[in-house]
Amino acid sequence: MLKRIAPELAVSQWFNTDNPLMLASLRGRVVFLHSFQMLCPGCVSLAIPQAQKIEQVFRNSDLQVIGLHTVFEHHAAMTPVALQAFLHEYRITHPVGVDQPGEGLLPVTMERFQFQGTPSAVIIGRDGSMLHHKFGAEDDMIVGARIASALSMPVPVVETAPQEPADGCADGFCAVPA
Amino acid sequence: MLKRIAPELAVSQWFNTDNPLMLASLRGRVVFLHSFQMLCPGCVSLAIPQAQKIEQVFRNSDLQVIGLHTVFEHHAAMTPVALQAFLHEYRITHPVGVDQPGEGLLPVTMERFQFQGTPSAVIIGRDGSMLHHKFGAEDDMIVGARIASALSMPVPVVETAPQEPADGCADGFCAVPA
Amino acid sequence: MLKRIAPELAVSQWFNTDNPLMLASLRGRVVFLHSFQMLCPGCVSLAIPQAQKIEQVFRNSDLQVIGLHTVFEHHAAMTPVALQAFLHEYRITHPVGVDQPGEGLLPVTMERFQFQGTPSAVIIGRDGSMLHHKFGAEDDMIVGARIASALSMPVPVVETAPQEPADGCADGFCAVPA
Amino acid sequence: MLKRIAPELAVSQWFNTDNPLMLASLRGRVVFLHSFQMLCPGCVSLAIPQAQKIEQVFRNSDLQVIGLHTVFEHHAAMTPVALQAFLHEYRITHPVGVDQPGEGLLPVTMERFQFQGTPSAVIIGRDGSMLHHKFGAEDDMIVGARIASALSMPVPVVETAPQEPADGCADGFCAVPA
Repeated sequence: MLKRIAPELAVSQWFNTDNPLMLASLRGRVVFLHSFQMLCPGCVSLAIPQAQKIEQVFRNSDLQVIGLHTVFEHHAAMTPVALQAFLHEYRITHPVGVDQPGEGLLPVTMERFQFQGTPSAVIIGRDGSMLHHKFGAEDDMIVGARIASALSMPVPVVETAPQEPADGCADGFCAVPA
Repeated sequence: MLKRIAPELAVSQWFNTDNPLMLASLRGRVVFLHSFQMLCPGCVSLAIPQAQKIEQVFRNSDLQVIGLHTVFEHHAAMTPVALQAFLHEYRITHPVGVDQPGEGLLPVTMERFQFQGTPSAVIIGRDGSMLHHKFGAEDDMIVGARIASALSMPVPVVETAPQEPADGCADGFCAVPA
Repeated sequence: MLKRIAPELAVSQWFNTDNPLMLASLRGRVVFLHSFQMLCPGCVSLAIPQAQKIEQVFRNSDLQVIGLHTVFEHHAAMTPVALQAFLHEYRITHPVGVDQPGEGLLPVTMERFQFQGTPSAVIIGRDGSMLHHKFGAEDDMIVGARIASALSMPVPVVETAPQEPADGCADGFCAVPA
Repeated sequence: MLKRIAPELAVSQWFNTDNPLMLASLRGRVVFLHSFQMLCPGCVSLAIPQAQKIEQVFRNSDLQVIGLHTVFEHHAAMTPVALQAFLHEYRITHPVGVDQPGEGLLPVTMERFQFQGTPSAVIIGRDGSMLHHKFGAEDDMIVGARIASALSMPVPVVETAPQEPADGCADGFCAVPA
């Protein structure tokens, strides 16, 4: 199976973080990205509590848990203001981004990841590849095992693309002019 | 213990019913009235599923299940539009009324019933009295027993207040003028 | 539906009671009789905890909870000695009788009640009739409702069978000799 | 922390396997060893179902699940005959050994592993070391993560201890006498 690199997030508003998150900046770490809607029953009863548990169980690892509010129905009900109240009431403290509205029904990131609905979750490896992609609820033991496997993989040695400095310095190195 | 007659509902908007409900009109039947907020975690995970189960278990009795959306926080998030989407997503089919906003923090019916928060539930007997009043989740077996006990009580013989028709008709009856 | 009077128990050994129990002596009270085997998974995970909860929920009523160990397989494993250890470990404190071994596969009481397997449960009304008969697990809310309904039924006025006293007294009454 | 090599099993009777299992022979694989008693409520409701789930979730790995019946009370009730019926009724299909009775209260293997009671579980790594030791129930997500971590560890290259055969044979090899 060919590795597929996870596409980047497109987020219009962040909660629970001062700085916007980019998957590109998280390269080297494992990311658990879960997509939800605040009025999706399976998200509320299963997927969100599981994401909170994952955050707790792996708190001593370098796993990053990210929530993504991918609204594709009832837009008038699931506004950012409503989401903020929801995050407060459900004690959700990990970073949550509002998926950027798209031109069609689906928001942009949801479209990029080809999520089939909510809840969905993706485990992204240290090398940025999508290790696992799941629509619907998944068993705790299986999720725990998948994340631990991802965490056990070696941090990739990032090969810096060799940049030809015309006649000077780049990346802190200076080339001798030809 | 003195019986306390349940106060009347004050509802600004009804869902899942063509005709507004009045407790006064339900005299003779048992009513299970549950108060909730759509962003209250205990309501969503416990009280609302229980109300739906009650509706199902006692479907062959004359029990009336009524939901009451008693918003006392996050008003901008829990609007009637959001409630409508919520009722749709959670497959709630019994009548739900939006508790009429009050002058203070609490909506009118919530104030009248002196609910301490959400979820709360009241079992109203055939004679209109409050048989049981509970803040928080209650065990299924206990709720089932309470409702069955209430249903087993005799339908009260309603004593019509003797109205002296001066010289005419009342209640569909016409008295012979003296 | 014709009422069917519950047959009598046939018990070879009792636990958790100094005096053997007879359904005939419990006439006037409601009885929850549950049949189990200590190595029956559904009994251990569902039916027995439910019986213990019933005992607790209705502790202020005159309900009598009775367990019946109806062994119809693995006789060498489910001996009275093993049952005693089981009752101790599972903190079962209501009276439990060992169903008397029968001539065939099934023990005597199980045969009389025509239980189809374990767990089974019967609710016996104040008049001794079988109000409800169930093979398998039943929902807590439904069981709670059934028992509360049974408890709400009036205590029957026991009509003493007219006994012809030869020439003397019976039951505290004395007949005038013919 | 110093690694502690798991002690060997002492088993008087095996179920669900034709050949007795030895931890020494399982070196190179990960082992999930769970200790239980058939009349221990926490074992029956939590630990045994979890062991069965582990067996299922990791069926495509080289994990070996082993049950150990460590009877330290109610010996007359928890005999091998009773255990056999129990394994049948609870559909337990992984190898289960009867811990060899000891001189004192505790059976031999339980004593060697210093289990504090039942249920207990140990995860043994590919190199034979005890990676995790737990008395009581553990969360599914955590257990899944621990086992996946253990499975991700490299199979140790067994370094044969260089034995100087004076003038003869050792380990199946014979040295040419000097």
